[in-house]
Amino acid sequence: MIHQLTLSDVLAEHARSRPQVTAVVDGELRLTYPELDRRVTRLANALAARGVAAGERVLWLGQNSHAVLELLLASSRLGAIFCPANWRQSADELAFVLDDLAPKAVVWERSETAAPLSGEDWIPAGDGYEAFLAGGSDEPRAPGDVADEAADDTAPVLALYTAAFDGRPNAALLSSAALVAHSTSLLVVRQMEPGFTFLNNGPLFHVGTMMFCLATFQIGGTNVFTPAFDAEEVCRLVDAEKVTQAFLFGQMIDAVVAANAGGKYDLSSLRFISHSEEWDAMTTVDDSPWCRSKMGGYGQTEVGGMLTFLGLAPGAAGFAGRPSPLVQVRILAADGTEVPPGEVGEICARGKSLFSGYFNRPELNEAKTRGGWHHTGDLGRREPDGTITFIGPRLRMIKSGNENVYPAEVERALKTHPAVADAAVIGVPDEKWHQAVKAVVVLKDGRTASAEEIVEHVKGALASYKKPRHVDFAESIPKKGFTPDYDALDAAHGGGGYPGS
Amino acid sequence: MIHQLTLSDVLAEHARSRPQVTAVVDGELRLTYPELDRRVTRLANALAARGVAAGERVLWLGQNSHAVLELLLASSRLGAIFCPANWRQSADELAFVLDDLAPKAVVWERSETAAPLSGEDWIPAGDGYEAFLAGGSDEPRAPGDVADEAADDTAPVLALYTAAFDGRPNAALLSSAALVAHSTSLLVVRQMEPGFTFLNNGPLFHVGTMMFCLATFQIGGTNVFTPAFDAEEVCRLVDAEKVTQAFLFGQMIDAVVAANAGGKYDLSSLRFISHSEEWDAMTTVDDSPWCRSKMGGYGQTEVGGMLTFLGLAPGAAGFAGRPSPLVQVRILAADGTEVPPGEVGEICARGKSLFSGYFNRPELNEAKTRGGWHHTGDLGRREPDGTITFIGPRLRMIKSGNENVYPAEVERALKTHPAVADAAVIGVPDEKWHQAVKAVVVLKDGRTASAEEIVEHVKGALASYKKPRHVDFAESIPKKGFTPDYDALDAAHGGGGYPGS
Repeated sequence: MIHQLTLSDVLAEHARSRPQVTAVVDGELRLTYPELDRRVTRLANALAARGVAAGERVLWLGQNSHAVLELLLASSRLGAIFCPANWRQSADELAFVLDDLAPKAVVWERSETAAPLSGEDWIPAGDGYEAFLAGGSDEPRAPGDVADEAADDTAPVLALYTAAFDGRPNAALLSSAALVAHSTSLLVVRQMEPGFTFLNNGPLFHVGTMMFCLATFQIGGTNVFTPAFDAEEVCRLVDAEKVTQAFLFGQMIDAVVAANAGGKYDLSSLRFISHSEEWDAMTTVDDSPWCRSKMGGYGQTEVGGMLTFLGLAPGAAGFAGRPSPLVQVRILAADGTEVPPGEVGEICARGKSLFSGYFNRPELNEAKTRGGWHHTGDLGRREPDGTITFIGPRLRMIKSGNENVYPAEVERALKTHPAVADAAVIGVPDEKWHQAVKAVVVLKDGRTASAEEIVEHVKGALASYKKPRHVDFAESIPKKGFTPDYDALDAAHGGGGYPGS
Repeated sequence: MIHQLTLSDVLAEHARSRPQVTAVVDGELRLTYPELDRRVTRLANALAARGVAAGERVLWLGQNSHAVLELLLASSRLGAIFCPANWRQSADELAFVLDDLAPKAVVWERSETAAPLSGEDWIPAGDGYEAFLAGGSDEPRAPGDVADEAADDTAPVLALYTAAFDGRPNAALLSSAALVAHSTSLLVVRQMEPGFTFLNNGPLFHVGTMMFCLATFQIGGTNVFTPAFDAEEVCRLVDAEKVTQAFLFGQMIDAVVAANAGGKYDLSSLRFISHSEEWDAMTTVDDSPWCRSKMGGYGQTEVGGMLTFLGLAPGAAGFAGRPSPLVQVRILAADGTEVPPGEVGEICARGKSLFSGYFNRPELNEAKTRGGWHHTGDLGRREPDGTITFIGPRLRMIKSGNENVYPAEVERALKTHPAVADAAVIGVPDEKWHQAVKAVVVLKDGRTASAEEIVEHVKGALASYKKPRHVDFAESIPKKGFTPDYDALDAAHGGGGYPGS
């Protein structure tokens, strides 16, 4: 018992340790930690009155909101499981999620949800949510704010839907212990301190934003919520709230630079990676390991976010860096034995930040944790300096002749071509070679390059058998989170015949 | 299983992730992480051959050595418990420890151990230890280097003897999970990164040095071992090994400055708190929260080291700062209820870094963890800003008339007198007031002050009832670790009659 630390416990401590610190900013709403703690108690009691008990699910369908953090913490206080689902999904996809999770409570933003779904007893976001919360008792759940059945920090508290392994998406379950451990690894690598202010402008149904929201919460910092990315609004909030970090990269940064062209907003509180001359002049270049390292690493929802950090491996050979101090990584062959450095195998992991399996997928869970290791489904390599290189999804390996081709490797080579803005690689069936490599390429505005030039460029960088035999030009690469949506690419560009599938 | 991370696991990962990193330097011995891993496997096998199984104890009696870290890691690999005992204890004290722990294996430095003890089958440090280790098999303990019974990271792995509560010292048991959690909190507050090099010059049988040894190990840094503090040798090692941090404070820093008066050694790799003009010029002033905050906080062995950090509470009212992100703190009254901010109660804690009770003390353990909270035995206060003030040991509270006087508070006031080098406060029996406050004062070399002047100084700083009624001058204050040895002071200066005892 004395070793437990749930997310609810972290909040209970912050309410005492940080009575004057702002925990949450969302539009007009500003909450100190004691205010957040009291709202979470009311919300937990209101949910309990609706039948949400330990192990039951609570669903959020909507854009970013303080309600996401409150529902997560209230679920922790009850021992329940909270899922912020992707509200942009189709009606069929959302129907699957509802059927899969069978939530006892749903809070939803009708106007933002793409699908024309609603439930009789669903709680509308906004005023409806406020009224629901206000109806909850303010009685602490139990002495010390910990209900006995909710005190176990190894119980799942967050469910995030992630890639399909067997044709349907799966809800990865993360416990308080895993989330606290992962947050702590981010505190170490990002060198987060009290006063850290994070702008939640990326989607909270993805681990990429959620992990920084939770690390900010863990260190007793301030979470600022905005519904979605809007460059001007990001500038305004950074200035007004003295934001330390936002969920920005690549073209989003360029959009922020453009929105702040006249220097209308003071963005100097942002401590960020160096990006462009204009950006560096507006912000403060940060020298934490995270920001020194182009924020790189390897991760997935199932490991709590990041498994390896480039920031822990300055000058690394492997561009995914080294494991978090709270995990172990093994590169395993199909038979479960460890492959030697330099050879490709599946990236497998064990440690404090790992998930607790998928909701309601006993067979998949058994398969994914065989031998006591979580099998990520991704291929990687241990380099001679001990660092990790991420190769690509195991099921996306292309078999061309007798050779294995990993799309990610070819994609990296493609992106070094000066005219290429984005690229993805798929395998297409080939009579002679079983599969052939096809590149789908997006050119930069105003730049041109022929298919032959692009193939030659790759040939100069990689072994010849890895070069694309076909090149399709496209307007954009469909994405799932930050990775190409290979299913969509296969469908649109004739992919198939993968050996792993 | 996939959530386990023992100290042995951390080593197994480092051996893969950091094949070229120096893990250990001790005299002529230099070990990379793979070399350390192989030696630990041999040592574990040699210990197993001697009958050390899961739960058995392994004892070290000697000064600082790489063997301390190796024996700890080998014990982890076996699921055994390692105890580095205070080798400076008397024969009676050591006999108690041997009887209490009943270790299956003892490694000892005959020449350094104060007590004339030896066992027939004890392993002599140095060549004897090397021969013992070399005799172990190099077979990994189990697939993945993890023996099933040793895989549980909640099992105790380290035993450190700590203050007596019932007239005898007790071995606080710390699990791998607690040590890894505590190390991570130090990584956050000290902002430790790969490459961190720690000089183990303080005693490893105390948590103060051990906790930095383990945090350095956790981040994959380098531990340099030296038998004990020697100012010249510290200078030499800092220069030669580019040490980031050593176990130095107060007079030890002055001694290092004096030893390096001519600038013979380059100490610029040391990243430290500002101390004196000469020191700051020799070293690099560090701006991590730990170093910005005078390295302060509150801790004890039972919480893994530090429970609260001043570095997490810039500008705090309470000089112990705020809790580590991995624990909760409550200030509790004797009846177990929480006292409001501003009132004194017992500092109680729960969280990831806490110990697993004392070895073989079931009744004491039950008493100390009543209500699901670890009772530290120390009094403290939550300030209005939520930060924690440490008042002093509960059993050392002085009852003078109807007033409670806390020695630590009076001691701090005494030490602000310009002529006072050190001071401690005890209660002496008093017919009228039940107890009276007595100060034991050490004057600075060449300085004088009368008892009256000293009493007046305290009276100017604190409520009048807290001022000493008696002042004894002494050559030094006897210490247990870093705190006054109050039992010795009571015996020497007539103390007694404490209400808590």
